[in-house]
Amino acid sequence: MLQTFASSISSLLDSRADGHSLPAGLYNREDVFEADVDVFFRKHWICIGLECDVPEPGDANVIEIGNSSLIILRDDDNQIRVVHNVCRHRGSRILDAGSSVVSKLVCPYHQWTYELDGELAYAPHMGADFDKSCKSLRPVSFKSIGGLIYACLSDNPPADIEHLEEVMTERLAPYDIRNTKVAFQTDVVEHGNWKLTMENNRECYHCSANHPELCVSFVDLDFGFDPESLSPEDREQAEQHQALYADKTKSWEADGYPSAAVEQLVDCETNFRTQRLIISGAGESQTPDATAASSKLLGTMTRKDLGDTHLWGHNSWNHFMGDHAVVAIVIPLSADKTLVRTKWLVHKDAVEGVDYDLEKLTNVWVATTDQDAELVARSHAGALDPAYVPGPYSRFSETNLDKFATWYIDRMRAHGY
Amino acid sequence: MLQTFASSISSLLDSRADGHSLPAGLYNREDVFEADVDVFFRKHWICIGLECDVPEPGDANVIEIGNSSLIILRDDDNQIRVVHNVCRHRGSRILDAGSSVVSKLVCPYHQWTYELDGELAYAPHMGADFDKSCKSLRPVSFKSIGGLIYACLSDNPPADIEHLEEVMTERLAPYDIRNTKVAFQTDVVEHGNWKLTMENNRECYHCSANHPELCVSFVDLDFGFDPESLSPEDREQAEQHQALYADKTKSWEADGYPSAAVEQLVDCETNFRTQRLIISGAGESQTPDATAASSKLLGTMTRKDLGDTHLWGHNSWNHFMGDHAVVAIVIPLSADKTLVRTKWLVHKDAVEGVDYDLEKLTNVWVATTDQDAELVARSHAGALDPAYVPGPYSRFSETNLDKFATWYIDRMRAHGY
Amino acid sequence: MLQTFASSISSLLDSRADGHSLPAGLYNREDVFEADVDVFFRKHWICIGLECDVPEPGDANVIEIGNSSLIILRDDDNQIRVVHNVCRHRGSRILDAGSSVVSKLVCPYHQWTYELDGELAYAPHMGADFDKSCKSLRPVSFKSIGGLIYACLSDNPPADIEHLEEVMTERLAPYDIRNTKVAFQTDVVEHGNWKLTMENNRECYHCSANHPELCVSFVDLDFGFDPESLSPEDREQAEQHQALYADKTKSWEADGYPSAAVEQLVDCETNFRTQRLIISGAGESQTPDATAASSKLLGTMTRKDLGDTHLWGHNSWNHFMGDHAVVAIVIPLSADKTLVRTKWLVHKDAVEGVDYDLEKLTNVWVATTDQDAELVARSHAGALDPAYVPGPYSRFSETNLDKFATWYIDRMRAHGY
Repeated sequence: MLQTFASSISSLLDSRADGHSLPAGLYNREDVFEADVDVFFRKHWICIGLECDVPEPGDANVIEIGNSSLIILRDDDNQIRVVHNVCRHRGSRILDAGSSVVSKLVCPYHQWTYELDGELAYAPHMGADFDKSCKSLRPVSFKSIGGLIYACLSDNPPADIEHLEEVMTERLAPYDIRNTKVAFQTDVVEHGNWKLTMENNRECYHCSANHPELCVSFVDLDFGFDPESLSPEDREQAEQHQALYADKTKSWEADGYPSAAVEQLVDCETNFRTQRLIISGAGESQTPDATAASSKLLGTMTRKDLGDTHLWGHNSWNHFMGDHAVVAIVIPLSADKTLVRTKWLVHKDAVEGVDYDLEKLTNVWVATTDQDAELVARSHAGALDPAYVPGPYSRFSETNLDKFATWYIDRMRAHGY
Repeated sequence: MLQTFASSISSLLDSRADGHSLPAGLYNREDVFEADVDVFFRKHWICIGLECDVPEPGDANVIEIGNSSLIILRDDDNQIRVVHNVCRHRGSRILDAGSSVVSKLVCPYHQWTYELDGELAYAPHMGADFDKSCKSLRPVSFKSIGGLIYACLSDNPPADIEHLEEVMTERLAPYDIRNTKVAFQTDVVEHGNWKLTMENNRECYHCSANHPELCVSFVDLDFGFDPESLSPEDREQAEQHQALYADKTKSWEADGYPSAAVEQLVDCETNFRTQRLIISGAGESQTPDATAASSKLLGTMTRKDLGDTHLWGHNSWNHFMGDHAVVAIVIPLSADKTLVRTKWLVHKDAVEGVDYDLEKLTNVWVATTDQDAELVARSHAGALDPAYVPGPYSRFSETNLDKFATWYIDRMRAHGY
Repeated sequence: MLQTFASSISSLLDSRADGHSLPAGLYNREDVFEADVDVFFRKHWICIGLECDVPEPGDANVIEIGNSSLIILRDDDNQIRVVHNVCRHRGSRILDAGSSVVSKLVCPYHQWTYELDGELAYAPHMGADFDKSCKSLRPVSFKSIGGLIYACLSDNPPADIEHLEEVMTERLAPYDIRNTKVAFQTDVVEHGNWKLTMENNRECYHCSANHPELCVSFVDLDFGFDPESLSPEDREQAEQHQALYADKTKSWEADGYPSAAVEQLVDCETNFRTQRLIISGAGESQTPDATAASSKLLGTMTRKDLGDTHLWGHNSWNHFMGDHAVVAIVIPLSADKTLVRTKWLVHKDAVEGVDYDLEKLTNVWVATTDQDAELVARSHAGALDPAYVPGPYSRFSETNLDKFATWYIDRMRAHGY
């Protein structure tokens, strides 16, 4: 009897071998995808956008996460609000995806009209005795951390976002991300599972052969290397680079810029890592020649030599530099499709063509994102193949993938799988 | 253990609260969609077309309902026939979707050849002893009611179509729909569940804000309103309109035109409603200026002031006016896609450009159908959202939706769910 | 209680009536499709390509079968190899679909580098102690039979391929298919189940009405006919044709060309049939006028009058003629989509425009394949229709379909369904 019986998600989780990529089913099964969306995109904190997506009162920005649609808006009192984009009458979408400017939130279907704080102000034809007070738009838990908006769609959001908040509030302060603007944004649909997108971002083992533009300013060795894989010359260079870190980190911290790595990657609910990284070459920015793309620096920055404060979340990666920042948000669309939305931020008063050149600003991460999309697609296609067997992560350059896989399995188990 | 267990369809039906829109699963689950097609599009009478779709002997029209394909044709004896478009040999489709003219029904695969009444006339290579008599094309139960063709794909069609037949045979007689022609036809795919398409059609609460073209001739108040929602002026106008109905209905009926509302919307198998409605403004027709679009009136009509005989079925809506009629047929394509096929009928001898102007004829319902498609899509997207909770129907302007939901649940239960 | 319960695959198999087409579910159910791919495309020998797809050392050709991707390549020692296109690191696809030339197989993701025999030669960052010996690319069982490559994705390939090998090695020798080239290739996606594609190919009952180009050179009667279906003239012609077979076969065999039909269609694992068929008209080749398309004959052939050696497998059909060969490979894409990849082979030294005219070479099977795609789509649409009931195969012209259905059911049962 050779008939196949699909294993339970739990037994798939059991079958994962330490130090190895995940069993295929965790990358490609529909039921796992649905569980992933529920666990990682509803019950954990996710990055959904930026305060500067809605700079003025009445600005609204709609983001779609799975079947959820969230309205991020700025109320007349300048406060950020996040509500579900679902009318309390018959459920119609109120706003379209993307940006709009509103004075009230008016459902186009039957003109139910909500205040910007979500309260139902007007519902025609519902009778004088209709109780509007229980029909506010449903609110979403969120936090703005240094201008980055994190939301949690569950009623019971993980408490350990506090660590991220504490660390990043201080580190992001000099960049004043609240007072930036989105100079450019791209949506790239990767033909692969969201976990392959995240794995791809958490190692730079693939960088040297695939990301020529990024490698001008980014040091692939920062995320680990096997000294024996390197030529004697490369090994010497790597050792010098490591020594440089000790110096740089000490000097940056002495100047009041926290720089050392902080990570909360396993045995936690909220997954993050940050560190101030060295920028190669000209040392200023992730641009084709590693010099700053914008002459108007971010926030209170007066120096271009403060490296790259990288920040990982389980659905985002970020690079904060003296002249600009790059923020990528990852949204799973299906078991085999993942949206990567990338935003390039500059000082809100920087003027395109005067203070910054858009091509120079965006060149590196536009190219890198396209290259990564290709790699993720190859990786997903392979994981679908019946000939796929989980392979070994490098213990030098892929330890963060092993941690991610471990965290993934722990969190699934914690939510009953 | 937070793993989700999909509830049964039966418990979804149980969970519906009176006076509220349906639980999300009834709008978006695949298993519910399959049950819906089986119950409402196979085991109930549905409108599938018009006698004037096949005006001459040998005319055939193929319509697809789910995976079924039906051939409506006119036999040489001028009778309408409806047969399944499935060859009795190896199942090949015999005719393509849409219209064709045939002398016999010849399967293109192996030339099995059927008479227009479905009898197998010729089957090459099947041997001299092959019994052709049991290989006729499978017939479909149907009724032509005043020229509208209703079919039921089950062996046990509901008997209460008789009430519809009795009422509409008389009301449609003066329009002589059998002697019309299809002047124009559109297929619009709405990105929403068929029940949202039907709900949208059964209220005019959304009309004033969404259908400027329709509101010239159509009175949104006809399908209910909350007097307290109206300004004193609008309320006075509404009251005058209601008084006008009493007068008009009396006068029309005195002239021999049955006009009062007849409805069979709950506690029944066949769902319908008809009423002669007042046309606003110029009072003649659903056109941009409410004057007739065709100078050649339908049937035996000699007056343009006989309003709009509307007719609802659970997969159709119709408007019969002095100069033209509009017939819409609703065909579910998937849980989230619904075809709305609209036909504009004029007198069979009316000549385009002479007796009627096509743009004027079609303007209102082309615009209205596109607007409704947008609303249904918004509504469906919202019903998919985990933040959706069934909302309250207006007890003034959405009572027909509450009846539709009640009927829907009753019929599902009657068929074993 | 009218709710539908999907029957098991086993009960679907049980419900098939002898002499009739398959129950609908076997043509259109997802679970049956997955079982089909597993049983017929993994556990049986399938045709995957030709030696001449990779004529030179370093030539590689990637073919996708379901979620499997296979690299066919020619090693430096001129040997054919077939390996899974899945990197042993994290599973990435190594080569893209289609043809390429390689010196090593280098995974683009992290540069794991394999020899052409699949051995892992280099894996950076994996540590000095990493055991590469167990990380070769996974090999695929295959056989080249006269230049046709058959593969089996299971560890336990059926032994009775030996009969095919024995018969065809001798019959194909004079054509020397190893020394041909692919003059043209088409991929046609048929909108139907793969079994309908195969059924369509295994009868010529549909040819006379659908394949005018093919019928110039191909005799539809060769695959059976009902004498009583034919006119007296056609019957006489058919009888003359059968007499001609006796003569021709005797004469060809006397000249050393095995010609009689050999078939292994039921009670076997490997399904095939071969016979040397008469070419009509000018008698040379399947071209618009039945004369040879290429003046440079295949292999050691010196005569154009040796008919058409046809060969069927359960996922392929082939015609070997004096001047060229046509090889079609069938790959299921989904329950309702099937890829037919057709290759036209000529002598490797034949020059387009000099020795052969491409349009003349490809005309007949390009047209025939398009016509068959249309028929398969009609047939599949009909099999989806709830009104479909399995119909009777002709006992004259569809006996090979009955055998195919019988074999299909036997093989499913043998694999536990």
